[in-house]
Amino acid sequence: MYRSRLGKNLGKITLDYVSSISDDVEIAHYDILGSQAHAIMLYENKIITKNEIKKILKGLESLKKEKFDKKTDSEDIHELIESLIIKKIGIDAGGKMHTARSRNDQVALDIRMKIRDDINITCQCLLDTIKSLVVLAKKHQETIIPLYTHLQQAQVGLFSHYLLSYADALFRDLDRLYVTYGRVNENPLGAGPIGGTSIPIDRISTGKMLGLKGLVENSIDATTTRDSAVEYIAAIAILMTNLSRISKDFSIWSTSEFSFLELSDEFTSPSSVMPQKKNPDILELTRGKTSHYAFNNTGTSIRL
Amino acid sequence: MYRSRLGKNLGKITLDYVSSISDDVEIAHYDILGSQAHAIMLYENKIITKNEIKKILKGLESLKKEKFDKKTDSEDIHELIESLIIKKIGIDAGGKMHTARSRNDQVALDIRMKIRDDINITCQCLLDTIKSLVVLAKKHQETIIPLYTHLQQAQVGLFSHYLLSYADALFRDLDRLYVTYGRVNENPLGAGPIGGTSIPIDRISTGKMLGLKGLVENSIDATTTRDSAVEYIAAIAILMTNLSRISKDFSIWSTSEFSFLELSDEFTSPSSVMPQKKNPDILELTRGKTSHYAFNNTGTSIRL
Amino acid sequence: MYRSRLGKNLGKITLDYVSSISDDVEIAHYDILGSQAHAIMLYENKIITKNEIKKILKGLESLKKEKFDKKTDSEDIHELIESLIIKKIGIDAGGKMHTARSRNDQVALDIRMKIRDDINITCQCLLDTIKSLVVLAKKHQETIIPLYTHLQQAQVGLFSHYLLSYADALFRDLDRLYVTYGRVNENPLGAGPIGGTSIPIDRISTGKMLGLKGLVENSIDATTTRDSAVEYIAAIAILMTNLSRISKDFSIWSTSEFSFLELSDEFTSPSSVMPQKKNPDILELTRGKTSHYAFNNTGTSIRL
Amino acid sequence: MYRSRLGKNLGKITLDYVSSISDDVEIAHYDILGSQAHAIMLYENKIITKNEIKKILKGLESLKKEKFDKKTDSEDIHELIESLIIKKIGIDAGGKMHTARSRNDQVALDIRMKIRDDINITCQCLLDTIKSLVVLAKKHQETIIPLYTHLQQAQVGLFSHYLLSYADALFRDLDRLYVTYGRVNENPLGAGPIGGTSIPIDRISTGKMLGLKGLVENSIDATTTRDSAVEYIAAIAILMTNLSRISKDFSIWSTSEFSFLELSDEFTSPSSVMPQKKNPDILELTRGKTSHYAFNNTGTSIRL
Repeated sequence: MYRSRLGKNLGKITLDYVSSISDDVEIAHYDILGSQAHAIMLYENKIITKNEIKKILKGLESLKKEKFDKKTDSEDIHELIESLIIKKIGIDAGGKMHTARSRNDQVALDIRMKIRDDINITCQCLLDTIKSLVVLAKKHQETIIPLYTHLQQAQVGLFSHYLLSYADALFRDLDRLYVTYGRVNENPLGAGPIGGTSIPIDRISTGKMLGLKGLVENSIDATTTRDSAVEYIAAIAILMTNLSRISKDFSIWSTSEFSFLELSDEFTSPSSVMPQKKNPDILELTRGKTSHYAFNNTGTSIRL
Repeated sequence: MYRSRLGKNLGKITLDYVSSISDDVEIAHYDILGSQAHAIMLYENKIITKNEIKKILKGLESLKKEKFDKKTDSEDIHELIESLIIKKIGIDAGGKMHTARSRNDQVALDIRMKIRDDINITCQCLLDTIKSLVVLAKKHQETIIPLYTHLQQAQVGLFSHYLLSYADALFRDLDRLYVTYGRVNENPLGAGPIGGTSIPIDRISTGKMLGLKGLVENSIDATTTRDSAVEYIAAIAILMTNLSRISKDFSIWSTSEFSFLELSDEFTSPSSVMPQKKNPDILELTRGKTSHYAFNNTGTSIRL
Repeated sequence: MYRSRLGKNLGKITLDYVSSISDDVEIAHYDILGSQAHAIMLYENKIITKNEIKKILKGLESLKKEKFDKKTDSEDIHELIESLIIKKIGIDAGGKMHTARSRNDQVALDIRMKIRDDINITCQCLLDTIKSLVVLAKKHQETIIPLYTHLQQAQVGLFSHYLLSYADALFRDLDRLYVTYGRVNENPLGAGPIGGTSIPIDRISTGKMLGLKGLVENSIDATTTRDSAVEYIAAIAILMTNLSRISKDFSIWSTSEFSFLELSDEFTSPSSVMPQKKNPDILELTRGKTSHYAFNNTGTSIRL
Repeated sequence: MYRSRLGKNLGKITLDYVSSISDDVEIAHYDILGSQAHAIMLYENKIITKNEIKKILKGLESLKKEKFDKKTDSEDIHELIESLIIKKIGIDAGGKMHTARSRNDQVALDIRMKIRDDINITCQCLLDTIKSLVVLAKKHQETIIPLYTHLQQAQVGLFSHYLLSYADALFRDLDRLYVTYGRVNENPLGAGPIGGTSIPIDRISTGKMLGLKGLVENSIDATTTRDSAVEYIAAIAILMTNLSRISKDFSIWSTSEFSFLELSDEFTSPSSVMPQKKNPDILELTRGKTSHYAFNNTGTSIRL
């Protein structure tokens, strides 16, 4: 439908190049939820009929089980979902789902909803980790260990002291993520392509349905800035740096030379030629993934 | 098999975390080719029998059609391929395929073979692009255009002058990639986990079969450095920066205010609410992907 | 003094390599303030005498006018200040200034104090900028301008709408910086090299004197983590990204093709060969500096 | 002089912001050499008189001792040098030094000359390091050491094997730098602001005087691309990654737990509170500086 004006379609190679479908799979669920809330609001404000909203909601509901992993001609998940809905419920109702909304609205909303869930999951994991560290620290209140600076023994201390230092750092990560949550949890809908919409929509209503706490007031701001997303990625990058430091400590301490701790078989890999070895791959991977996140951080900031 | 020593297997979550299978799909083909060459060399040097080599080669050949996209319990493609071979041809022959070789050997080889192919493909594309630029420049030998510095009109020039400046930059990219090709195209096999192998293998033979031009002489160097891979990524990052500059010029020139060029429908996207618009997504994506590559560049270098 | 154990001194080249003096100039002032507070606390707790504290405070006060730009043999500003104090007031009093404190304490404190001041200065500038944007927006409530997506005209809007979108983004930057301020503004003193000190110091007292609001509780955390500093740099990087976007808009709008605005002579540079040109260097430099900060961001995070 | 058109001068704060003088100090020497060659060429082609060239060369020669560290009102070193020359030898001769040349020409040339010298110095250091490694390896042909993978003992090997692996990696760095040297060592003069100059200059002559091997053919390419500079920085970043790996090995091996090597006093720092400690600061700094270079790498590429 979008393509109606243009004489030619995007060529196959061009489409593969510009299509964001494979990345979009991660926001498909949020796009459906957002479309449901938007459609309900359109009905509340008499922009679409009872019959139309019924069809739209049913159609969207049925898409929640979809995996969206098949090859398509769509440029992105928003176009794909709309075309699937039109196929399911017809152009009359389906064609109205997108009323008073642009793809820019959808992208802005979907990213915010995705980050919100990611923060919740990450913070639950952080709390579990902090709890484990505290439990372990309790057991090791009298376990003596050298404290290191520059990898050289500096003072004598307790293992619990190390463990609690990790917990303190991770607590700050938790704090950071929840501050970001507040900044992300605002409703960008209504921004249109960039300058808003002349159709009398109700932003408060969609915000309430979607659990968003405030409005992004300026439509240009809503569609052209991603600083809250970058803030999220920065928070994750800092968290990863803290995890990397912990992993490095554990990795060195599990060498046969240091021998302070032995990793459980569940968390090590044997060598392909030396089955007696215990390789701390999982710790090393955490360190490797850290730089990946750290880079994506500013990568995103530049791309905006 | 690798797991035989360890009492417990990796937990499900741990396995998901450490498994590189989804990334490894890109090197599966090279892993099979490398294993075929390695097995032939083992036979040439009487380390395995004629019967064994026949089975191994046939087994590996049959895997070339495999897509490796199913869920597996394997940590990586090397382990997966070995276990599939053992399943196909039995432990007696299949178990010998890995003789005198470690996963470190395989990773080092596979990455080199993959980069080699990527360079060839990229350079073919570069040559096509340069050719198009030259053809277009020929047509525009008398097309006058302002030359810009700081986005301000500076001097009067020819459009062909701009087009050839792009071609010159891309030629340097081509040069860079082929210098890197030479450095990547060396045989790391025989390094073992890190210190080589005591089995009398023939590195010259595997190198010849795989089209590799020299030997990585030191086994520690072969397994622990990836600087040639980073060099490749740096070359790609620089190429992307050049493409980004071209994209930016075209993007600005295709605004209605500049109006120097109009992008073909095949290379633009309409807006979801304003079908008359021609959005130069493809140019913008090239700019976006540039920073992605630029970052991965150093990302990789740090992760080593 | 630090060098007393080691038979040999650092060689000249080594010293040049490891010395942080030129970078440390930025924290010298905070180091002096921190040393004054520390010394007063030592006196309050009868660790040093009235006579000693008098001499130390006077010595430190006199150093506040120092520029620290001469060549020295010191590895860092902490060592340099201590040696200057000992020279000024003698080893008896001067040698006690460092009691119950390590360089790690000082570095951690100085960085926090420096960031605190930087945040205050930056936020004042942000408020000024926001105010200017709002004043300008008021004047342009009826100035019509195209709203652009993908650099293509998308909708018709008001110039004030653009200006307020910038203000909204900068307000978020302000918010971010003040959250970070709170996290930075804690007292790390007392951590010693890593495991604390056995001398009965009073961390509450030094904190109060220096305007710090809380304590970094764990000494390992205090000396080995810099995540709050990285958070600060991330906030600055995000701010710079917002400024970069504004600069890009202004840069394009001040081309002769767009001609929406003309930069004042005070903010443009002429060309060396075309004096009639107005080059928006200042906008371009803001864009250039952005990537610099964005990179330093994660640079710091990795170095920790 | 540049400022003549503009009614107002740059404000003080603006000037501080845009001025590159403090960075430019590093290229001042090359700017003088380049100006001398350019002036001689102008004389050779009868664009300036014998009397004028004499004055210009003498003036420039006298500037070679200048430190350029005083506060100035100049935006950059090119403007500063020109104004100093005019002050010294008068506007009649001094004003002609810049004939047929723009600041863009100068920047492009100076960067290339600076990189050329940097490569020579770096490669000399690399050769010295490689030689030391080989000499040390000779001594340790029978020194047994564990070979590590994942920081776990993997095989038994020789210390010389490690040392030579470092030498091999550094040799590749040397190779990379000299390939880059060739690409950097071309003459960009004659490009003017972007579109060349109509004055009949002789690019071959300036190139010969300055030891440059070829011409950058396209003037737009000469002034708008910096890919060879980025290539240089990428090569340095990769070198630093190799040095970082060596530093990490030495750092771990010099712990009391590993105790494979002891750093000389000349290369370690004592703790401020524990004078018996030997901190491998110099190794850690190399690691820290690595990420700095790695980041600047792509930083530069984005800024272009």
